[in-house]
Amino acid sequence: MHRKHGLLPLQLGLDPGAGRPLHAQVREALRAAILAGRLAPGARLPASRGLAADLGCARGTVLLALEQLVAEGYLTTRAGSGTRVAATLPDDLLSRPRGPAGAPAPSAAPPVLSRRGARLAAASAAGLPGDGAGAFALGRPALDAFPFETWARLLQAEWRHGACAHPHPLGDPRLRRAVAAYLSAGRGVACTEDAVIVTSGIRQSLRLVAELLLDPGEAALVEEPGFPGLSRALRDAGLATVPVPVGPHGFDAGRARALAPEARLAVVTPAQHYPLGTMMGPENRLALLAWAEARDGFVVEDDYDGEYRYAGRPLAPLHALDRAGRVIYAGSFSKVLLPALQLSYLVLPPALVAPVSRALAGAGIAASALGQGALARFLDEGHFAAHLRRTRRLYAARQAALVAAARRHLAGLLDVPPLEGGLHLVARPVPDRAARFEDEAAVAACARAGVTVTALSPYFADRAAAKPGLLLGYAGVPERAVEPAVLRMAAALRA
Amino acid sequence: MHRKHGLLPLQLGLDPGAGRPLHAQVREALRAAILAGRLAPGARLPASRGLAADLGCARGTVLLALEQLVAEGYLTTRAGSGTRVAATLPDDLLSRPRGPAGAPAPSAAPPVLSRRGARLAAASAAGLPGDGAGAFALGRPALDAFPFETWARLLQAEWRHGACAHPHPLGDPRLRRAVAAYLSAGRGVACTEDAVIVTSGIRQSLRLVAELLLDPGEAALVEEPGFPGLSRALRDAGLATVPVPVGPHGFDAGRARALAPEARLAVVTPAQHYPLGTMMGPENRLALLAWAEARDGFVVEDDYDGEYRYAGRPLAPLHALDRAGRVIYAGSFSKVLLPALQLSYLVLPPALVAPVSRALAGAGIAASALGQGALARFLDEGHFAAHLRRTRRLYAARQAALVAAARRHLAGLLDVPPLEGGLHLVARPVPDRAARFEDEAAVAACARAGVTVTALSPYFADRAAAKPGLLLGYAGVPERAVEPAVLRMAAALRA
Repeated sequence: MHRKHGLLPLQLGLDPGAGRPLHAQVREALRAAILAGRLAPGARLPASRGLAADLGCARGTVLLALEQLVAEGYLTTRAGSGTRVAATLPDDLLSRPRGPAGAPAPSAAPPVLSRRGARLAAASAAGLPGDGAGAFALGRPALDAFPFETWARLLQAEWRHGACAHPHPLGDPRLRRAVAAYLSAGRGVACTEDAVIVTSGIRQSLRLVAELLLDPGEAALVEEPGFPGLSRALRDAGLATVPVPVGPHGFDAGRARALAPEARLAVVTPAQHYPLGTMMGPENRLALLAWAEARDGFVVEDDYDGEYRYAGRPLAPLHALDRAGRVIYAGSFSKVLLPALQLSYLVLPPALVAPVSRALAGAGIAASALGQGALARFLDEGHFAAHLRRTRRLYAARQAALVAAARRHLAGLLDVPPLEGGLHLVARPVPDRAARFEDEAAVAACARAGVTVTALSPYFADRAAAKPGLLLGYAGVPERAVEPAVLRMAAALRA
Repeated sequence: MHRKHGLLPLQLGLDPGAGRPLHAQVREALRAAILAGRLAPGARLPASRGLAADLGCARGTVLLALEQLVAEGYLTTRAGSGTRVAATLPDDLLSRPRGPAGAPAPSAAPPVLSRRGARLAAASAAGLPGDGAGAFALGRPALDAFPFETWARLLQAEWRHGACAHPHPLGDPRLRRAVAAYLSAGRGVACTEDAVIVTSGIRQSLRLVAELLLDPGEAALVEEPGFPGLSRALRDAGLATVPVPVGPHGFDAGRARALAPEARLAVVTPAQHYPLGTMMGPENRLALLAWAEARDGFVVEDDYDGEYRYAGRPLAPLHALDRAGRVIYAGSFSKVLLPALQLSYLVLPPALVAPVSRALAGAGIAASALGQGALARFLDEGHFAAHLRRTRRLYAARQAALVAAARRHLAGLLDVPPLEGGLHLVARPVPDRAARFEDEAAVAACARAGVTVTALSPYFADRAAAKPGLLLGYAGVPERAVEPAVLRMAAALRA
């Protein structure tokens, strides 16, 4: 019956009872058709509505599959010309032979990416933070609370007389001093400025540490679920990541040992597990430190937004319990101030200071010096502490508004329990909907209603074991905007 | 006789006629003594004067060897406590066994860096740009000419209203547009903003491109001599760098083909070879483009300071001759504005735009967004063009002053011919001194006289074939400071 389009002589063979989400089946079938050449490069696809009718599924399912294929580079979309098969396919780049018998390929051919290049280029950001905006995008602090005037004034004061001419590979000494003072006084991370290095982000920090401590092919333990960007940084460093399922008390070193006895590096989020928001328990903390000592290994403690805790008592950071110099503490100003600062820091154990410093100096990857002086002044003059006080109150109120609105309007659909800290909540389907809840389809439905939510399942390395859910970032959403967005979500999800 | 120190029971066995520089012999001998345990970790070395007397060589030779060992991490130095053997040695980290029969090492032991980590951490920046300051440090543009007031005002204007909240993985669209306009109008690089991506530096750019285009173990062609930071970026990407000796007309594709027939990536500096300042000839340009087409490969054209040309006619960039989409053009604001901006750019061939964009978006290594908006305005409002006009005149005058002062005071020691462009000159020993001229010793001698110069020989991958010379950066040196610095150099080198 698809002959009526004259475009898609295609049998996709979907099976609603197959246990795999329909949109995933559509995507796989389309990809297979593209790779087999049944859909030629440049070929135009029928409209999603017609395709959905042909396949006997919802249009939303088709749209979701198409979006993913666009994100992966199999399809292209352009206003006015619809959706087409990409002229150059990711898998084509991956495996295209170099021409017969070693002859050079014609110069007009698409470039031959390397195998790793194809992997890097195909890595899709779909479903991860950074996409979308507005309620309830992740990774968006309250811009309305940020003192832009003060920041602009400090930047100008810093630059007017040309103070900052050359980047320092380890970071501006004033900022390193200010961070050490803040961490020692405010976060229970006793350190001196010598141990602090400034980086341009946790992913860069992690890659650097991974390259220094491990050789390609070695194993690194990560949390399951966990932030895919961290795993990617480790894999970019050539490591094999081993996901360790986290329990209600966080990362379990015993389980890690069983899964990867040879591993010597673990990356964890003890204060607030990302993305679930749970706290690593005291026993697990001590067990992890003992593991690191026994393995002659290291633990990266990613304290990405531990500044925000609204209830309960925080535990001391792993760093405070570390007597053997095995913890590398990582923090960032992206979530507590502004993502655009792109300034993070590492607190290194004494033995790593010299080698990391030398590696950083040699690699030419110093964090931007442009704002470091201004940020040091921002800390020294008390603006940072004031901003934290202000935003802690603000975010607590925003979280409460989201929990209340969800109770009112998402009852029977999603449970959205409060969390003691962080900048987002985790919405889970209520038990009698859990079996047929597809979080990526829900994300697409909400997006069509103008609400950005993030699917939990892509945070699982093992997609077969993934639990569905939605991550709702609330920090950047004014209280008055919370309920209307939840109402739109509810309507979209009940449709 | 060294027994009188009670510290150094050591026979170093130097051989002045061995053909290797004495300071290198001293360094090797000390390193061997350290590694063999004859000099224990923490042991204090005798004063350089006594050591020189023991060894029967000049104190400068000893100081140079010690400086290098400090830079490499074998020695540490601290005011008041002299020079000591480092507690943790680079080679120790490199090869220390993991304890007997798999037993864990004691937790107080130094950290076990990976093999690549030891390489990364041991990479010394000695002799490369970034060291030192003042006359005649490399990589220092004229800070006295930079319009800091304007820049500070633009930064403040940009930030006052919070325009820049989130980094864009490919760069601020306004900056990409401004760079495309500048390159098309001012540099003969016709491109649209879509093809421009903003990066935090040429080394980051190069590593990204290398990872996308080649797999670990593949070969990349670099210029010999050439900037070691570029080779390092390629090696960090897992590639094998193949240095291709450059002739008077620059990089020779025929020679490259003979050296590495399988290579598919070349990194070159056609406008002004770095560091020699020569220009790649037209035949070599066409041959290189033909090579890239035939090999299905790519050429990175690093035009790091092509803005500065004071005499002669510049050739069109390789990019302008490229009909097959094989040239990746790389530029930077570090040398023409300020190193602290840490903003560079790539102009990509059409086929690479999508994969590079996807890889950048996924990798979380976007260049700092902090100054991109302000820089776009700096370009759009004409400040950049004005700065280029002003500094071209200034640098031409500074170069002329250096050439004149060198003729007056370095005659019989060094030849310092003018160059048609760039920000530094290359000083070569006069013929009858060439045989015994050690550029690294000359650097140390000048440093003791308060003048920063850079040795040419470390820019050669093959140190045995290295030609000695000194690189003199003049862009950041006011005219009145040139002659006094040359006088100090002359005195130091004649001592």
